[in-house]
Amino acid sequence: MTVKVMTNAQTIRSNEDKKYLINRLKTIAGQVKGVSEMIEQDRYCNDILIQISAIEKSLKGVANEILKSHLATCVVTKIKNDELDIIDEIMELVRRLD
Amino acid sequence: MTVKVMTNAQTIRSNEDKKYLINRLKTIAGQVKGVSEMIEQDRYCNDILIQISAIEKSLKGVANEILKSHLATCVVTKIKNDELDIIDEIMELVRRLD
Amino acid sequence: MTVKVMTNAQTIRSNEDKKYLINRLKTIAGQVKGVSEMIEQDRYCNDILIQISAIEKSLKGVANEILKSHLATCVVTKIKNDELDIIDEIMELVRRLD
Amino acid sequence: MTVKVMTNAQTIRSNEDKKYLINRLKTIAGQVKGVSEMIEQDRYCNDILIQISAIEKSLKGVANEILKSHLATCVVTKIKNDELDIIDEIMELVRRLD
Repeated sequence: MTVKVMTNAQTIRSNEDKKYLINRLKTIAGQVKGVSEMIEQDRYCNDILIQISAIEKSLKGVANEILKSHLATCVVTKIKNDELDIIDEIMELVRRLD
Repeated sequence: MTVKVMTNAQTIRSNEDKKYLINRLKTIAGQVKGVSEMIEQDRYCNDILIQISAIEKSLKGVANEILKSHLATCVVTKIKNDELDIIDEIMELVRRLD
Repeated sequence: MTVKVMTNAQTIRSNEDKKYLINRLKTIAGQVKGVSEMIEQDRYCNDILIQISAIEKSLKGVANEILKSHLATCVVTKIKNDELDIIDEIMELVRRLD
Repeated sequence: MTVKVMTNAQTIRSNEDKKYLINRLKTIAGQVKGVSEMIEQDRYCNDILIQISAIEKSLKGVANEILKSHLATCVVTKIKNDELDIIDEIMELVRRLD
């Protein structure tokens, strides 16, 4: 696993939020495993691709949850502290997520 | 795991192709697990989102491999057999993968 | 206007198809002009961005129409003639349109 | 032209910024016109689709410019004024632009 930009920054999350996000990621891991099994079973390409598009939607959903809480916490705090380089950080992220 | 459209159709793949795709999916499963750990460790949202965008790229890569072999095998065969409803199937897929 | 790959290949279209596509492109040109006017009028960024996302959807719609007829005509013909380099051409296009 | 959400809000832009954005939109309008001409001339579908993908990239570029200045001005101001419903507005935009 490669992480392109790595910081030591932290975002404290409630146990509830953590559990919620980790559960959604478990579902995604299950979907990925499901695709492996479809390949193992010689399933039809089109069905596999539809399943991959479902994983993409699930991932996008998790990313949007994290982005929303990022904006509501880290970004709001930084802007109030006049740490406006957060704007460039968001824009880099937007370009990456496009 | 929900599969929106489910068929009994099969696509026979070589053992080599299967192993290659399944390995790539194992890497993706590892990336998904990595994101869970980042959340567990209260890692910075932006870093997590960058990592999710890396997973999206990996998934897109696998999808493109499967799409390419789909076109080269199933689609070519069907078109040569004048089973042209394959065009609508591809278009539905394109809209889904957008 | 830059065209990255330029060929002399032709695709004959019916007058009806041409008119239909050109009308849709006229609508898109109108939407682009509308965005210029919004900027001229100091309209709120968010409203402008929503309008740009509408243009993206319109463009995607036209692209999908052209892709569908491309598959149904050029691609079917080439595959039946065993000109299978069309597969690579489609995959290059898919990566570009991602 | 339909604008899905319409507000009376304003964003004052410098003449320089306006000119820059309007020029980029003029280029896009020219690209759209170019695609119409390609259809008129029965040009090859694949070439037209490549050109449409170039328009999508141009549009995305303009959208990103506007988004960046939106974040740096409107969003910073609203967050400093504790008008935090701007977060929901951004998230709605992100979902739309996906």
